[in-house]
Amino acid sequence: MQVPSPNTREAASMYGTVVAIFLVILVATLQSSAPPEDPFPYRIPLDPEGSLELSWNVSYAQKTVHFQLLVQELKAGVLFGMSDRGELENADLVVLWTDGHGTYFGVTAFPALACKTRPESQVHRKQDAWSDQRGQIHLDSRQDYQLLRARRTPEGLSLIFKRPFDTCDPKDYLIEDGTVHLVYGVLEEAFRTLEAVNTSGLQTGLQRVQLLKPSIPIPALPADTHTMEIRTPDILIPDQPTTYWCHITELPDGFSRHHIVMYEPIVTKGNEALVHHMEVFQCAPQFETFPQFSGPCDSKMKPGRLDYCRHVLAAWALGAKAFYYPEEAGLAFGGAESSRFLRLEVHYHNPLKIQGRRDSSGIRLHYTARLRPFDAGIMELGLVYSPVMAIPPRETAFVLTGYCTDKCTQLALPPSGIHIFASQLHTHLTGRKVVTVLVRDGREREIVNRDDHYSTHFQEIRMLKKMVSVRPGDVLVTSCTYNTEDRELATVGGFGILEEMCVNYIHYYPQTQLELCKSTVDPGFLREYFHLVNRFNGEEVCTCPQASVPEQFAAVPWNSFNRDVLRALYGFAPISMHCNKSSAVSFQGEWNRQPLPEIISKLEEPTSHCPASQDQSPSSHTVVNIGGGKG
Amino acid sequence: MQVPSPNTREAASMYGTVVAIFLVILVATLQSSAPPEDPFPYRIPLDPEGSLELSWNVSYAQKTVHFQLLVQELKAGVLFGMSDRGELENADLVVLWTDGHGTYFGVTAFPALACKTRPESQVHRKQDAWSDQRGQIHLDSRQDYQLLRARRTPEGLSLIFKRPFDTCDPKDYLIEDGTVHLVYGVLEEAFRTLEAVNTSGLQTGLQRVQLLKPSIPIPALPADTHTMEIRTPDILIPDQPTTYWCHITELPDGFSRHHIVMYEPIVTKGNEALVHHMEVFQCAPQFETFPQFSGPCDSKMKPGRLDYCRHVLAAWALGAKAFYYPEEAGLAFGGAESSRFLRLEVHYHNPLKIQGRRDSSGIRLHYTARLRPFDAGIMELGLVYSPVMAIPPRETAFVLTGYCTDKCTQLALPPSGIHIFASQLHTHLTGRKVVTVLVRDGREREIVNRDDHYSTHFQEIRMLKKMVSVRPGDVLVTSCTYNTEDRELATVGGFGILEEMCVNYIHYYPQTQLELCKSTVDPGFLREYFHLVNRFNGEEVCTCPQASVPEQFAAVPWNSFNRDVLRALYGFAPISMHCNKSSAVSFQGEWNRQPLPEIISKLEEPTSHCPASQDQSPSSHTVVNIGGGKG
Repeated sequence: MQVPSPNTREAASMYGTVVAIFLVILVATLQSSAPPEDPFPYRIPLDPEGSLELSWNVSYAQKTVHFQLLVQELKAGVLFGMSDRGELENADLVVLWTDGHGTYFGVTAFPALACKTRPESQVHRKQDAWSDQRGQIHLDSRQDYQLLRARRTPEGLSLIFKRPFDTCDPKDYLIEDGTVHLVYGVLEEAFRTLEAVNTSGLQTGLQRVQLLKPSIPIPALPADTHTMEIRTPDILIPDQPTTYWCHITELPDGFSRHHIVMYEPIVTKGNEALVHHMEVFQCAPQFETFPQFSGPCDSKMKPGRLDYCRHVLAAWALGAKAFYYPEEAGLAFGGAESSRFLRLEVHYHNPLKIQGRRDSSGIRLHYTARLRPFDAGIMELGLVYSPVMAIPPRETAFVLTGYCTDKCTQLALPPSGIHIFASQLHTHLTGRKVVTVLVRDGREREIVNRDDHYSTHFQEIRMLKKMVSVRPGDVLVTSCTYNTEDRELATVGGFGILEEMCVNYIHYYPQTQLELCKSTVDPGFLREYFHLVNRFNGEEVCTCPQASVPEQFAAVPWNSFNRDVLRALYGFAPISMHCNKSSAVSFQGEWNRQPLPEIISKLEEPTSHCPASQDQSPSSHTVVNIGGGKG
Repeated sequence: MQVPSPNTREAASMYGTVVAIFLVILVATLQSSAPPEDPFPYRIPLDPEGSLELSWNVSYAQKTVHFQLLVQELKAGVLFGMSDRGELENADLVVLWTDGHGTYFGVTAFPALACKTRPESQVHRKQDAWSDQRGQIHLDSRQDYQLLRARRTPEGLSLIFKRPFDTCDPKDYLIEDGTVHLVYGVLEEAFRTLEAVNTSGLQTGLQRVQLLKPSIPIPALPADTHTMEIRTPDILIPDQPTTYWCHITELPDGFSRHHIVMYEPIVTKGNEALVHHMEVFQCAPQFETFPQFSGPCDSKMKPGRLDYCRHVLAAWALGAKAFYYPEEAGLAFGGAESSRFLRLEVHYHNPLKIQGRRDSSGIRLHYTARLRPFDAGIMELGLVYSPVMAIPPRETAFVLTGYCTDKCTQLALPPSGIHIFASQLHTHLTGRKVVTVLVRDGREREIVNRDDHYSTHFQEIRMLKKMVSVRPGDVLVTSCTYNTEDRELATVGGFGILEEMCVNYIHYYPQTQLELCKSTVDPGFLREYFHLVNRFNGEEVCTCPQASVPEQFAAVPWNSFNRDVLRALYGFAPISMHCNKSSAVSFQGEWNRQPLPEIISKLEEPTSHCPASQDQSPSSHTVVNIGGGKG
């Protein structure tokens, strides 16, 4: 799994160096007979071996996440936290740590946990800290994680703690909607002081998750719900770090039109840390049949026709739970007009190259023959897959924007509008943020979906916290932020993994004919740009019209002027619209050289509920005794 | 005097709405016999009538300004504070205020002032407050001004209070080097509550001042110092709001070469609030003689030749004290090579159109015949007065930058370098900020002078807090920020008052031949810009080569693209240098199409000494009894 290394300056200013807790606990065998805690509905293995398991619960009322960290076997300590993109530098950390001695510090904020002097035992310290840009841990003066309970269980050491979404310290990590990069580390041996712990010397890793799951009521399933399992056929997971497994299956003969109303993951027990994400695609209806196949998607044996199985039916990623359609809608499948063939794709993430593990994971579709009032639809917003939209190299945060214009929604949407209930964001490797905003009468009204910590390695269909209604005449603006620091040449739009996309697949109802509402810059204006580059750069480089657009971009000397003007061009030039019924068939109308939608007012950034300034508690060390020693 | 109305949003975010004090005092005639307070060396009348006088003292050790506000005749109250550009909206205010009743609030932080219940007296309240964007006053929860003493004196009510430079509240006004816009208001009648006071209904005004005077030791004057007074000849101040008075005088026949070592203002008693600034210029040596003249500078009677009297000898503005040259240098005047003729220019600011006031104000030069080791010189940095540097209309903060390149300093400066000890910043009406930075080996090293609240209406020669040494090969980068929100057309560079300049006159020693080290964008690249504007905007406008540059700029349609590309051009295109011995004679070398100096590292913004977060004291009302009543 690629761990991007963002500009540390930027990361530092955005999330800063952040606060940690030191739990000073007695590492004696603890006798605990307390009943289980409140349920933590979301659960995820942190490390590939599954020896660290995180479960959590979100309280929107308290704006707080409650965590339970289960440590199967505690060595010298463990480190958990969050950071912008999964780096251990500038991370917001909790450290559970022993120094191998009996020394510890008084003062605890946790009345449930008595502080006792136990000089004869090993002691773990709980203390505020942060890691700097070099991964060195420092003490800090603020405490934003709060330990609620620590105890031994048969499964291991259970730590329950909470953390507000927003600590009100602008230097701290802010828990936001969308992807959160969890980081962890295992301390193999005792350190004399916390500051002797350098995170670069630890066994560490990251796990991506959507922490802030929406708290929407689960719709009741109809009584006649049937299930269908789309699973891999007890395959042997390759001992490779990354495998995308493709498996073709088909609906029963004569399977009529049904509505999928829910789907959920089936993960083979023991493989929870290996199964990263899964998707079910329906194949294209224009082919009578598709060949059988079950093997790695990049296998040379894979029949080419499987590339026509791209219509998403279901998508799951690590940490996601069951996906429920709204009560009034379902996703149609089956029937004469759609293909009987389905493609299951499972991404196995096996960095430890574990051998001999068998797997039958997949997705269980829950469907009903009693069609719901509305068919759900999937629409693609963002940028056309075209090289005319490009990102210069060595950019840390270059933004490209695609539009779904008022003219297109006016033509294609029903008078009562559509209702977006879920969204899947998509870019390739350099994508860092994705956001779609609804614009009405020139004013930004609502965020459809936003992920400021987007990763191409973690794509899931996310239920929206609140359905977004789009009316005819509305504009949908999808912006993607890219980081091309490690690239030498421009990154152009396209299908290739080294090219880029900016897409939001919105899930909505009632279904319309509009499948694709995307834009690019007008190619004529891009030609003017290349002409300008030639004039300003003394013709020593060829960005000449006879070359292809990727060749022209490859020839641009990326000085500040050419970068600034490209940015200005994308922010000004008219656009070509794709307002399509399917990827090839356009709605009737003129879609070239369309004016860029004008946005006269922006959404304000959500105002912080933090006081303008606040108490600064003095730096304090907290010693926590988590039970009686028996040694 | 023009009071610019900045973008209130911007102003709000920069300086915020800020804190005030309510002084609850007894408006009884007070008997006070205390000795005078600590001296407040700087003194300025706030209002044109001189009924409010501010004096102050700067403690760099405590990072605090101590103020004494003298109120000649207190009516219902008085309001004093600071804001970004002199607006009463979003101002940082102190309010001295009576409600006409005996009610008041307890709690005072000023132990020197006993709190007594005096229900029979009028009471003034002291309370934290801020004014919002509409000028409405609100209570606030923080107190950043601290009252030290309030007492009656024969001159009026004296209030002594202090305010830290930085209150550590990011919403508060930060007292910085350079211009500070003081605001004041007189409450004519009692208000029932502070929140009933709307600043728009008051008699208010502003006064510009350099609050943070440098604390540099005053050099001793030589024993043989003589003085010469350059004064207006007992003129009648015109009853016009603005008059620039021009008066020609001459040095004695045969006056030999001397060094000016100090100069100071002479302001006719009673006219302190009317005399705004004064400058003494030496006329050009190429003319044998200059005609006598004493009258308004814009008079049709003024001889044209007086335009050749532009070499600054001395400049003073309201609030400035005596100007001392460093001990080792003096400004040469007199002798055969310079003109005997001097022009005194006095700016009278008479908004109340007071009639019949006579004035003999001027400047007293202190000079010596025993020449000091070094001649002081004046060098002009920034932009050439050329229309090729232009600001689009409707910009709130457009930056233009002029360079003094390494190539020029390499040629023109002595091996040991020069030492800058003072600086006078200069723009025309739309200038809002000016800064000059010293760059060595591509890295920003030091700020030469900076004013983030610059006003064209307040230009003075300011001593630097610390001398800045410039070596051959160094680069001096002067940037000006302009606000053209109220303009319809581009503002081009030039001499006209509606054109713009970006200049820093640096005062330095030892004098060199280099008088002017300034730049503009390369005109060929600007032609490419106009060509581009034509191609991108469908030739419907003529920015054609046969037109003049101002005509071409006037024809540009100012869409986002044309703005962005102009900004990109100025940040990228090569420059034409003026590296001149006098305004017409260049040092030898190629000065066209020079590369823009590369700056690989920027100076970091000064780190705040404020804690990351701090105590928030609860809102409290303070009642202050300033003495015994006699009524």
